[in-house]
Amino acid sequence: MNNPLYFLFGFGAPIGAAIFAFVLVRSINRRDAGTERMQQIAALIRSGAMAFLRTEYQWLAVFVAIMFGILWAFLPGNALLVGVSFIVGAVLSATAGWVGMRTATSAAVRTTAAAQTSLAAALQVAFSSGAVMGLTVVALGTLGIAVLYFLYGGLDGNGPSAIASLLGMSLGASSIALFARVGGGIFTKAADVAADLSGKIEAGIPEDDPRNPATIADNVGDNVGDVAGMGADLFESYVGSIIASVALAWAMTAVTAGDLWGVDAGAFGTLQADLAVFPVLLAGVGIIASMLGTFTVRTDDESKVQSALLRGLFVASGIVLLGAAGLIQAMSVPWAVWGCVGLGVVAGVAIGKLTEYFTGKDKPPARHIVEQSKTGPATNIIAGLGVGMMSTGYPVLVICAAIFFSYELGNVYGVAIAAVGMLSTLGISLGVDAYGPVADNAGGIAEMSKREPFVRQRTDALDAVGNTTAAMGKGFAIGSAALTALALFATFQAKAAEAVTELGGVEAFDPRHLNLELTNPNVLIGMFIGGMLPFIFSAMTMNAVGRSANEMIEEVRRQFKNIPGLLEGKAEPDSATCVAISTRSAIKEMILPGLLAVSAPVLTGFLLGVSGLAGLLAGALVTGVLMALMMANAGGVWDNAKKLIEETDKGSERHKAAIIGDTVGDPFKDTSGPSLNILIKLMTIVAVIFVPLIVVWMQ
Amino acid sequence: MNNPLYFLFGFGAPIGAAIFAFVLVRSINRRDAGTERMQQIAALIRSGAMAFLRTEYQWLAVFVAIMFGILWAFLPGNALLVGVSFIVGAVLSATAGWVGMRTATSAAVRTTAAAQTSLAAALQVAFSSGAVMGLTVVALGTLGIAVLYFLYGGLDGNGPSAIASLLGMSLGASSIALFARVGGGIFTKAADVAADLSGKIEAGIPEDDPRNPATIADNVGDNVGDVAGMGADLFESYVGSIIASVALAWAMTAVTAGDLWGVDAGAFGTLQADLAVFPVLLAGVGIIASMLGTFTVRTDDESKVQSALLRGLFVASGIVLLGAAGLIQAMSVPWAVWGCVGLGVVAGVAIGKLTEYFTGKDKPPARHIVEQSKTGPATNIIAGLGVGMMSTGYPVLVICAAIFFSYELGNVYGVAIAAVGMLSTLGISLGVDAYGPVADNAGGIAEMSKREPFVRQRTDALDAVGNTTAAMGKGFAIGSAALTALALFATFQAKAAEAVTELGGVEAFDPRHLNLELTNPNVLIGMFIGGMLPFIFSAMTMNAVGRSANEMIEEVRRQFKNIPGLLEGKAEPDSATCVAISTRSAIKEMILPGLLAVSAPVLTGFLLGVSGLAGLLAGALVTGVLMALMMANAGGVWDNAKKLIEETDKGSERHKAAIIGDTVGDPFKDTSGPSLNILIKLMTIVAVIFVPLIVVWMQ
Repeated sequence: MNNPLYFLFGFGAPIGAAIFAFVLVRSINRRDAGTERMQQIAALIRSGAMAFLRTEYQWLAVFVAIMFGILWAFLPGNALLVGVSFIVGAVLSATAGWVGMRTATSAAVRTTAAAQTSLAAALQVAFSSGAVMGLTVVALGTLGIAVLYFLYGGLDGNGPSAIASLLGMSLGASSIALFARVGGGIFTKAADVAADLSGKIEAGIPEDDPRNPATIADNVGDNVGDVAGMGADLFESYVGSIIASVALAWAMTAVTAGDLWGVDAGAFGTLQADLAVFPVLLAGVGIIASMLGTFTVRTDDESKVQSALLRGLFVASGIVLLGAAGLIQAMSVPWAVWGCVGLGVVAGVAIGKLTEYFTGKDKPPARHIVEQSKTGPATNIIAGLGVGMMSTGYPVLVICAAIFFSYELGNVYGVAIAAVGMLSTLGISLGVDAYGPVADNAGGIAEMSKREPFVRQRTDALDAVGNTTAAMGKGFAIGSAALTALALFATFQAKAAEAVTELGGVEAFDPRHLNLELTNPNVLIGMFIGGMLPFIFSAMTMNAVGRSANEMIEEVRRQFKNIPGLLEGKAEPDSATCVAISTRSAIKEMILPGLLAVSAPVLTGFLLGVSGLAGLLAGALVTGVLMALMMANAGGVWDNAKKLIEETDKGSERHKAAIIGDTVGDPFKDTSGPSLNILIKLMTIVAVIFVPLIVVWMQ
Repeated sequence: MNNPLYFLFGFGAPIGAAIFAFVLVRSINRRDAGTERMQQIAALIRSGAMAFLRTEYQWLAVFVAIMFGILWAFLPGNALLVGVSFIVGAVLSATAGWVGMRTATSAAVRTTAAAQTSLAAALQVAFSSGAVMGLTVVALGTLGIAVLYFLYGGLDGNGPSAIASLLGMSLGASSIALFARVGGGIFTKAADVAADLSGKIEAGIPEDDPRNPATIADNVGDNVGDVAGMGADLFESYVGSIIASVALAWAMTAVTAGDLWGVDAGAFGTLQADLAVFPVLLAGVGIIASMLGTFTVRTDDESKVQSALLRGLFVASGIVLLGAAGLIQAMSVPWAVWGCVGLGVVAGVAIGKLTEYFTGKDKPPARHIVEQSKTGPATNIIAGLGVGMMSTGYPVLVICAAIFFSYELGNVYGVAIAAVGMLSTLGISLGVDAYGPVADNAGGIAEMSKREPFVRQRTDALDAVGNTTAAMGKGFAIGSAALTALALFATFQAKAAEAVTELGGVEAFDPRHLNLELTNPNVLIGMFIGGMLPFIFSAMTMNAVGRSANEMIEEVRRQFKNIPGLLEGKAEPDSATCVAISTRSAIKEMILPGLLAVSAPVLTGFLLGVSGLAGLLAGALVTGVLMALMMANAGGVWDNAKKLIEETDKGSERHKAAIIGDTVGDPFKDTSGPSLNILIKLMTIVAVIFVPLIVVWMQ
């Protein structure tokens, strides 16, 4: 293995990206932050968001400490290194969220200010802040893996034990991600629903009105949910896919490599070491591609914002494909692996395009819902659910095709590489995604600080595109989650087989606990339980939104009643209390679903063995992906159908019907749906980590 | 094997049930059919329902003929007998639907007339008509199987080849069931939604108002959907579970029997022949138990209707358990099998009770939805979806426990016997279920013929209980579908293994096409495709309801505009046109989902081999059961939450919100949800029949 290459792409590229992100942050912060009123509002949002993150991180610190203790106390083998990796993963994930949110809250008000000058300037600020989030995620992810793998001796012939220790990092990233997604998702939608119901409907005041005490909480929610939550989500996908492919490289045998690529057994040693570091290097290539891509994102034409963003993504994808070819040329990796990278990149773009079709404002599905809104909310809801269910079809077929062909080209390692390929441009694709909430907040600040209408118009133009890119980002997150979960699933099986061999081979066990065939009832029972979990999990998080929103509605009503002059605009609302309510209930409500996700695979493993646990993971993977697609797309298309009606027919009966659909879609697309990606990966990585314990127990 | 026992329970019991049903029909028909106006309305409903059935059966005849041709032309081996069994299954299913619907349409008007005398009399008529449906289904099912198995030489040492031919009957029953459920479901909900939207909301006239041209179609729909559709659904479950257990008895090996029950190899021959006929005899016992149970269903107390119905069910369950013990005593079947029967019976009752909790009008979930309706339709919808998703948990755990323990007691044969046990009381449980639409229709006739308010009150009391029993019946249908599908899945695997052995053993095939382990990507790809199908299928059927309803709304509007004096009650509406619209669109819309169900497993099998097909079946089983539970329970609880509000707060804002939830729930619980049970079984039986062809293709 070519060590300089490793340091160049594994260390150099992420450090370069971090510096680039730092420069972007400086350039954002140097911009005009607008009037005093604007800064005041921005400060409120920022302090609310940071307060939430602090509280959340305190709780997570407790969780991390307990989990570290459990890992250390119970895991056989290199428990301490797994624990250390776990903490590194958790801390890096938290750091990425913190950096992203600081930048986003500082960029939003500057986007508003820039929108006073031009659309181009506003796009520049908002997108830069998204890029900071994206680049921070990929830089911390890649650097963390590269450094730990190096420190654990992965380059010095200790690859298999290094990667076994590294798996803990994925667990750390996934745990934080689940809590951040669930907590952030509950916060943002509780505040959103409460602000809408108490403000728009009960008090009859417009959205983002400064008199509404829940408005600040609503804007805080965009940051904690769509910035920090989304960042943590994709950080764990990114880290998970890279770590899984390194692990699968070390789990590959010379026979498999011979069958796949005609490699002879003598050359396999070098090949394996190269296969193991290839994903890390590929991530480095992707980081460079993403940075280059950001330079192509600029426009001053409202109608071209979306194509400017997509241009950045396409340029980065092209560079990744070229760069990957260069890597393959420089290493002993077979060209078939390049095919897997390509499959991942193409599948990601295809899912994004399909999502754009199913949720896009000018596309037939949204028009169908507009049509069905004429006969009221019931037909609007039925149509939206119908579109959501129907929209699972093509993306699932794309995922299936990616699995089939990448497996043909590179076995399970190939599937893992496809996942890394899909996520390699995350630096920019997350940037495209995270720019949305910044634009959204910028609009909120414009409204609250009573800027000129054209300012709001410009931020709205940015925000509208943000809806589509957010839906695309979700499709992308789901697609990569499916591939990553599959790669982690293969890692789980490799680890289970290893543990079984150590304890005397399959003869020492009840076959019903090990046999992974569909004929084994334990597998089917596991599949039923696993398949059910996304339903239960979605129900829990949706109900949590309902409960939290109700609590906040009570508070808003109380303030409207008890603060004299509030509705007349003569007094300030107490927005801090609303933020505190959202924070408290989001933290409280994230605990139970989080514990369910961590404990279900362990319990099932102890009760039904490796076979039951494998069934659980497979069942959860299938229904999780389907439910996530359904909820994300239904939520997206309801939102855009409402926007489409608003263009011509605001305030009509069908508009009211569409608002109801949009409200139903809120927890779908921003709380329950996106949490499912993480649920399936978290359960899989928990299974990977705990399977040696389960095997010992089964004996 | 004791042949007299076979003839007694396999021939005698169903013939006795048929006679009993005939006596019930006579006694119903002898009752007072009410005033001329009532009879006029009843005749309209009846002729509409029968016209639909005729049209549907004409189309199905074409389908059956084509399918028979395909089976005959392509299947290797005893293709002709499979084809004959297929036709017998299809014809018996159609006959059961026809008898049930004739009786129901004749009983409804007599229930209205009886309600003028007393509640007890009305209950008597309505329940008798339900019992006719239930007993016809079990009689035709059991007799059909017993006769064919006898004719094919199953009692004379040709068991394995007899059952191979008999599998076609299950395919026939499932095909008809899918079309009947989907067609009937679309008809009933399109008419229901159209009648509500055009009548209650647009024209401001009450439900079941005779001025509304869609009212008759709505009442026809109750019959074609909830009577004929439900009957065909459970006929195929019933037949499928019995045939699968006979097949699995013949697929069992002496080694398995030895491991399970300590039977020595010499005694296995007799045991196997007894195991094979045991399910048929058990069905006969269940038929007798159901007849006895019907005698205990009577009451004159409004508050005790539900407990009277449940009493009948419990008595029948007790008799089945006793009778099964007697059978075991008389045969060489081990007592462990009795345990499987018990598990099935208990699991069925448990799922019914859980459904009652999650959908019941006075239970916490319904109250939660009522509470959430205060803040409008959006929170009502979110809460209903939340309840539906949450409600999947316990039933799935019950199903898992039933699978786990029945497998422990009797391997896959045990799982199949649990399904037969669960369905053994179908004669009465379907009666309890099918009584609901009769009571519903009776209320409609009372309204349209302007009977005294107390008549409607009495039919309403019967109808309200019908909602809960319908939800319980659906839970039951889903639970038995899960077990039956699993048994058919095991049959599929046995058939696949047989075909592989005939063609030279596993060595002759690509392992990726045969290996059923979760590690095989073909299995996972199949699972993704299979898991997706229930989503696509639900979307298709929900959209079909929307399209058909819209077409009928246009027609109702046209009539209100063009028929002078209609709204003033001075002219008759043209209800026949509405029935014709519903019929035409239901028939048209059932074709595509039906073809999808038949073709998806065959195509997947040809593309991805036995492994991909097995994955597809497993994936569809898991998401199909979950989606069916979710949709049935969400639909049921929305309906009852609306009813709960109506008790105290009719016409309020929260009532309006609850009506919207109820309308969303309509296609959930009566079209898409119930079709999913059949979808998973139909796909499995298609796989069973076509797997020899697929194995040949793979070679």
